[in-house]
Amino acid sequence: MQKKQNRLRIIPLGGLDGIGKNMTVIEYGADMMIVDAGLMFPDDDHPGIDLILPDYSYVLKNKDRLRGIVITHGHEDHTGALPYLLKELDRPVPVLGTKLTLGLVKNKLEEHKIKRPKLREIRAGGHVTLGGFGIDFFAVNHSIPDGVGLFIRTAVGSILHTGDFKLDQTPIDGRLTDYGALAKFGKAGVTLLMSDSTGAENKGFCRSEAEVGRALRETIANAEQRVLVASFASHIHRLQQVCDAATAAGRKIVVTGRSMVNNTKVARELGYLNIDPDDIVDAYDSHGLPPEKVVILCTGSQGEPLSALARMANGDHKTVQVEKGDTVIISASPVPGNEKAVSRVINRLSKAGCNVVHKGNADVHVSGHASAEELKLMLNLTKPDFFVPIHGETRHLAAHAKLAQAVGIDEENVFILDNGDCLEIDEEYAQLGDRVPSGVVYVDGVTVGDVGQIILRDRQHMSQDGFVSVVIAIDTRTGKVAGEPQVITRGIVMDEDSEMMADLKARLTKALAKTGREGVTDSAVVKRAVRESISQFVWERTKSRPMIVPVVMEV
Amino acid sequence: MQKKQNRLRIIPLGGLDGIGKNMTVIEYGADMMIVDAGLMFPDDDHPGIDLILPDYSYVLKNKDRLRGIVITHGHEDHTGALPYLLKELDRPVPVLGTKLTLGLVKNKLEEHKIKRPKLREIRAGGHVTLGGFGIDFFAVNHSIPDGVGLFIRTAVGSILHTGDFKLDQTPIDGRLTDYGALAKFGKAGVTLLMSDSTGAENKGFCRSEAEVGRALRETIANAEQRVLVASFASHIHRLQQVCDAATAAGRKIVVTGRSMVNNTKVARELGYLNIDPDDIVDAYDSHGLPPEKVVILCTGSQGEPLSALARMANGDHKTVQVEKGDTVIISASPVPGNEKAVSRVINRLSKAGCNVVHKGNADVHVSGHASAEELKLMLNLTKPDFFVPIHGETRHLAAHAKLAQAVGIDEENVFILDNGDCLEIDEEYAQLGDRVPSGVVYVDGVTVGDVGQIILRDRQHMSQDGFVSVVIAIDTRTGKVAGEPQVITRGIVMDEDSEMMADLKARLTKALAKTGREGVTDSAVVKRAVRESISQFVWERTKSRPMIVPVVMEV
Repeated sequence: MQKKQNRLRIIPLGGLDGIGKNMTVIEYGADMMIVDAGLMFPDDDHPGIDLILPDYSYVLKNKDRLRGIVITHGHEDHTGALPYLLKELDRPVPVLGTKLTLGLVKNKLEEHKIKRPKLREIRAGGHVTLGGFGIDFFAVNHSIPDGVGLFIRTAVGSILHTGDFKLDQTPIDGRLTDYGALAKFGKAGVTLLMSDSTGAENKGFCRSEAEVGRALRETIANAEQRVLVASFASHIHRLQQVCDAATAAGRKIVVTGRSMVNNTKVARELGYLNIDPDDIVDAYDSHGLPPEKVVILCTGSQGEPLSALARMANGDHKTVQVEKGDTVIISASPVPGNEKAVSRVINRLSKAGCNVVHKGNADVHVSGHASAEELKLMLNLTKPDFFVPIHGETRHLAAHAKLAQAVGIDEENVFILDNGDCLEIDEEYAQLGDRVPSGVVYVDGVTVGDVGQIILRDRQHMSQDGFVSVVIAIDTRTGKVAGEPQVITRGIVMDEDSEMMADLKARLTKALAKTGREGVTDSAVVKRAVRESISQFVWERTKSRPMIVPVVMEV
Repeated sequence: MQKKQNRLRIIPLGGLDGIGKNMTVIEYGADMMIVDAGLMFPDDDHPGIDLILPDYSYVLKNKDRLRGIVITHGHEDHTGALPYLLKELDRPVPVLGTKLTLGLVKNKLEEHKIKRPKLREIRAGGHVTLGGFGIDFFAVNHSIPDGVGLFIRTAVGSILHTGDFKLDQTPIDGRLTDYGALAKFGKAGVTLLMSDSTGAENKGFCRSEAEVGRALRETIANAEQRVLVASFASHIHRLQQVCDAATAAGRKIVVTGRSMVNNTKVARELGYLNIDPDDIVDAYDSHGLPPEKVVILCTGSQGEPLSALARMANGDHKTVQVEKGDTVIISASPVPGNEKAVSRVINRLSKAGCNVVHKGNADVHVSGHASAEELKLMLNLTKPDFFVPIHGETRHLAAHAKLAQAVGIDEENVFILDNGDCLEIDEEYAQLGDRVPSGVVYVDGVTVGDVGQIILRDRQHMSQDGFVSVVIAIDTRTGKVAGEPQVITRGIVMDEDSEMMADLKARLTKALAKTGREGVTDSAVVKRAVRESISQFVWERTKSRPMIVPVVMEV
């Protein structure tokens, strides 16, 4: 038992089964710390779900040992579970992050009405102690400013956690990934490297953010009418480059879309985004400006149906209508699953006569994640004893594991983990310990955690084949069917007065006559008979299997 | 009226609002012909729908004038509506296609039990007359062998229809796109060019199919265990290259997946796919072979959940299980909308320890569609008076229109049409005539055409928020509520014995008491009151809006 106490335990609760809900628990002795608490956006497998959180019940069960939560950067896949987690912790646990990260987090916590969170600003190059953890923060480049990685020292070993990163040699803010620190940690000895795998399948080096500037400047300078630019609202360096290109072309900047307005406000207040107040115009005041004097910064780069860009494309935005000859720059890459939605917006804009400039036809986007050569460089700089690829789908983790082997790390020292796995490290070895509870928590409207697989399966079933509800009243005195059975359908082809409906009712009457003859009074048995006969009837006629919902009313 | 009779009328019924359901009606005088009759595969906006057909009611209305249907190649987006169309035509209309195209079509028509179709084999370089249309066929390269384009002559002008094409300088079968014919038609005078727009956003020249061979040969030669290759079953040249690479590496070939088995059978019988019978092994007999002696050709390159590859990845394929160290080549590109499904399969295979080789990490796929430079070459060879970009989403048509302008075609002579538009051409001009009915027809199970927007909207509504059905019995003698109201829910969080359910029932009782006090007996009014009170209650509690289905039983 004493021995076990001295192990370093690394437990990823999210981030290993897809891009999103990144969260890692690290334990040593009596102390626990968390790196990131992110959310994941749902896909079509999760109809009606708003957000997906990692299952952090293990943290709640051990909350007395939790010394702090470190947030590596301000993206929602690293911060979005934080409000939910903080609400469930009954004491204010310190949340550590850099200035911009905390600025963005603060906004979110306020929306969730979380009072007096214990936010602790840290800086790249700084050091803090949380219980038995000594943590150094180092600067990393990413598609949001002010990102950091962590070097965590304990008595039995050290962990280097990269956060999300790329190695940009010409970053917009001049803040390079801290190669010196990485080399220093490498020399001091990295027991375990946990490194961002998102870009592991991409060959070579990721292009510099600065390269996007050229295409933006050229497109904006050559545009004859209005220019609209859709991008991620948190991509402050991208926004800076758009604003610089706009002012260089003598254009004013209009900001629209809720998150774009919020984030530019925070970033300007904290000094991360520099725009002359004279160059910004309110959307309502922009109508007076000639089209060739405006750049509109907006949300909607993912084709979100309610975003500013989608509304403009559909002609139902409250202040901006796109016109023939306008230029629209989509300065982003579709997140997997959003390709069709983005294409839909491009089609609408093309139809309206806009010149649509996107990743497919111009260099208006680069990734924020390290490609293969950068990942190998990270491995070579830090020279870890053990390696856990993080942040990615299995394919990315597997590709990253191969890169590690290519630079000489033994296969047996590379651990491709699942969420909930526990990697235990002591002075001598690393090995898997007992798993902890893990999984996902669905947020649906204001409902957190109650939506389960049955509900999702029912939703998918109904979306594929609709439902048929058959309502029968049974007279409790006689045990006989009272009144006319009613049949309600949704999502299937069967009109109220169709021949098929008449046939279905005839089949139903026959089934009920049979249960009547057999003297069945148990409503569960009646329901089953109804379900079977209707299910069979609909299959015969339509080759579809709607959900059958029999209701027996006792009157 | 006489004048109008002498116009050439071009009416695309599909293919202009997305990739798929390609179909163009061409009319001259009393004659009508059709080029292609394809289907489209549904996306997530069409829950439960199996196939989408173009609305060809205009053809049915004018079927007496229909002289023939020409199929350019054997892909389903050009052939898939044919069985449905032929069933609704009450006489055997000639279907024209090349040998392989008809071979594949014949299979489909047999599945649909269409007796004695009037199939007429044509060949590239051949000529046929259909009423007032004189048609020359010319060879084109595409991702299926034996594709043709059409040069259609009438007394008032000519149409060059490319079908789907690319300009492959080193095609696998040595059959080049017929540049000589194109130049000859260009010299003779092309009034209207209709050209494939799918690749219009891609710069440069599309790479040759032959280039894929290198990567396939190398991957298969270097594999240490079994190799699985997933590809489109109709991509015969790709399959030929896989088989050649397999035999070069001393491996036997196993074919699995229904369409893969069917298509390779047809292609081998007709001489389009050459495999020594000794090199093919039945899947059931493959277990005796050492893993390093097998290549398995399978379906599933689009991540289809029931395909051979997906089943193998999930461990539930009847004859093949993937093992650690197997190599899986996905020799295809995900069709837009399928990215996530493909990724899911790659993740499963990675998890199983397979080495997954795909477009993202090796040159194992090229497109079958011409890129920008090829499209410009087509425009320059044919020198049309008028141009209609076809086969693509709006973004592709718009990009293609720009290419036409870049090679000197006036903007006013380029027509970006919608499905159902009618372009009229006579000796002097081209202009839009009256539109014809157009749209989509959904195939859902065996139901063709009855599924409409309301049904799809209901399905989507239920998939997002579920439903609540409230059943009330009313005693017709007293007009009062009889028995206990019943509440049935699916797809929302509300357990039978939850507090929320109790509260909902209380709210319902209150609403019914109110209608009772007000002496309401009209069941429509009772239903409305129930719907409003329940809808409001659920919104207050969950911020969701399930479908509310009130049922009033009269007993």
